[in-house]
Amino acid sequence: MLKVGILGGGQLGRMLLQAAANYPVETFLMENDPECPAAHLCHHFTKGDIKNFDDVYGFGKLVNAITIEIESVNEEALEKLDREGVKIYPRPSALKLIKNKILQKQFYKEHEIPTSAFVITENINALQSHENFFPAVHKIASGGYDGRGVQIIKTKADIRLGFDAPAVLEKMVNIDKEISLIVAINEKGDTALYPPVDMVFDPHLNLLDYQLSPAALPEKTLWKIEAIARKVVKELKSPGIFAVEMFVDRNGDVHVNETAPRVHNSGHHSIEANFCSQFDMMWRVILGYPLGNTKHIMPAAIVNLLGAEGYSGDAHYEGLNDVLKMENVFVHIYRKKQTKPGRKMGHITILSKDKQDLVFTANKIKQAIKVISSRK
Amino acid sequence: MLKVGILGGGQLGRMLLQAAANYPVETFLMENDPECPAAHLCHHFTKGDIKNFDDVYGFGKLVNAITIEIESVNEEALEKLDREGVKIYPRPSALKLIKNKILQKQFYKEHEIPTSAFVITENINALQSHENFFPAVHKIASGGYDGRGVQIIKTKADIRLGFDAPAVLEKMVNIDKEISLIVAINEKGDTALYPPVDMVFDPHLNLLDYQLSPAALPEKTLWKIEAIARKVVKELKSPGIFAVEMFVDRNGDVHVNETAPRVHNSGHHSIEANFCSQFDMMWRVILGYPLGNTKHIMPAAIVNLLGAEGYSGDAHYEGLNDVLKMENVFVHIYRKKQTKPGRKMGHITILSKDKQDLVFTANKIKQAIKVISSRK
Repeated sequence: MLKVGILGGGQLGRMLLQAAANYPVETFLMENDPECPAAHLCHHFTKGDIKNFDDVYGFGKLVNAITIEIESVNEEALEKLDREGVKIYPRPSALKLIKNKILQKQFYKEHEIPTSAFVITENINALQSHENFFPAVHKIASGGYDGRGVQIIKTKADIRLGFDAPAVLEKMVNIDKEISLIVAINEKGDTALYPPVDMVFDPHLNLLDYQLSPAALPEKTLWKIEAIARKVVKELKSPGIFAVEMFVDRNGDVHVNETAPRVHNSGHHSIEANFCSQFDMMWRVILGYPLGNTKHIMPAAIVNLLGAEGYSGDAHYEGLNDVLKMENVFVHIYRKKQTKPGRKMGHITILSKDKQDLVFTANKIKQAIKVISSRK
Repeated sequence: MLKVGILGGGQLGRMLLQAAANYPVETFLMENDPECPAAHLCHHFTKGDIKNFDDVYGFGKLVNAITIEIESVNEEALEKLDREGVKIYPRPSALKLIKNKILQKQFYKEHEIPTSAFVITENINALQSHENFFPAVHKIASGGYDGRGVQIIKTKADIRLGFDAPAVLEKMVNIDKEISLIVAINEKGDTALYPPVDMVFDPHLNLLDYQLSPAALPEKTLWKIEAIARKVVKELKSPGIFAVEMFVDRNGDVHVNETAPRVHNSGHHSIEANFCSQFDMMWRVILGYPLGNTKHIMPAAIVNLLGAEGYSGDAHYEGLNDVLKMENVFVHIYRKKQTKPGRKMGHITILSKDKQDLVFTANKIKQAIKVISSRK
């Protein structure tokens, strides 16, 4: 029986392990915190630092294959394990490229994958000579995650907010829609594309508001999006699951924003809404099974459950009962002990054939539930 | 956060714990075999004998609530825990009644719940005086499980096959259909009924062949079935999940066969096919959440994956890839290390709006997959 290790024990690890229990596989997990959301769902838990060479290498020697649930892992250890015959999903080469925002942008350019115009900036002073690029987005090359390491530079006055480290400065796209498309690719290079997801942002809060799947797109745009996502994944030359995030601009042109080399928040609805969930699919890739059916059973929306502003401490889910009463709604609480503002504490999936119902219920859920702590 | 214990670590425990990972709950499990299907999916595993008073009592003192995934647990320990304030699902009184086939039959009679005619037999000799009952089914009062402890007595010549222990002798029903209906009932007495399931038997092998949900039934029969199932569960006076198994005879009359006081094989399709699965529902009952929506997302069939005749030893799943290629099919392997003839090794759920497709795919799956061992 295959032994498979996961680096990282957050909600993605948790959902990967829920799905693993449908298959004959022996699971291993490494994470520093033994109380993390995924720790109790594996066969063998190893306490260790996923950024530390020795920890990752030692863990890798226990298993036949490794996957990640977060990018910030020790690449050097994975490269050595790869050379020694451990299967790594995604391949260390693809991970390395994606982790560095400069390399990632250069990769798109090199393979003629449409992406916003950019320049590389070595330090904060370099921004001075790129005024013609503003309004722009400054992204630090390494170490950014979940909104950190990204800064909007609208005018010259914002330059002081930029990063004094290697970074990319990207020309801002006049965004009509943000789309995510999840692609699975196996060892043989077969691909399976999920229907694209419309990531609807709240224009005031700049937070992901809810996600709709499948996205409503003109057929021509859909073809473009699918062709681009497939191209990105083919050129990464690695089996695994990839979430290709794209902007559709007001002219209908598509620009790749960035790619995640793993299961992704924009695919969580697939647990209930698609014949094969992204988590099930990941196991199919690792275990060498045929790729699954990415089609929808029913259209879906996701609402992310974020820690409310102003609350830090032991998590409490206010209004959970009201949400659990709703007829076509699926609750996923990640059981993180501590909440803090903006922390991903869970998600809620809505199924409905009627798009208006999806949007209506998503808004109702956002009103009904709040992750707070007993003390402010 | 509520601490909940499960007695037994088989596939039902496994699927209960997969569902638990959607909620804020701390899980405990007791089972003798630390390599059982469910052991690795709980927060706290206790090695212990679920039939032993001290083991069950000690385990129960660790938690706020206990549920079971098999009936053969130590009732006395549960009764003591119940008195000491641990919540037990189902209540020990309901479990005790159901575990004993004589008490169970008397319960149906006492509450005027339709069930086949029966007599109680204290020993094998008592069968001699009930020839007028033949053809009949002889069921041992205690200790039967999964087909064991049940014997068909067609004629006087079969009397020697009967049980020389307290048992019930039931007049055989001229069965048209076997139906299972799963009911959830919470502390307040609110009930939620799943659509009834048609359990289709292979007339040659006397094995459950596949299950279809919802069952095709005349509306009048459906009403009868629902009223009877609700009555059974109300009279058991216990929160929990109950599977009421019924016969519909050739006159359209309904007879309760038996009731299981827990999540049940006939409800496994609910994981993918219903808005709230039976496993999710069990957690809603225990955690005091509102009952979920039992409606179908799509009609479904289940094929049980049983150990093939003639094979015992390390399990191997021949044809698994062929099944995983099918578009509307969900595989659940329980990861039991050893297969033996007839052992439940997994199940496969099929979703389709088209009943003919469900039956066709069920048969295709039965042809495609076989659980064998490397050595005969």
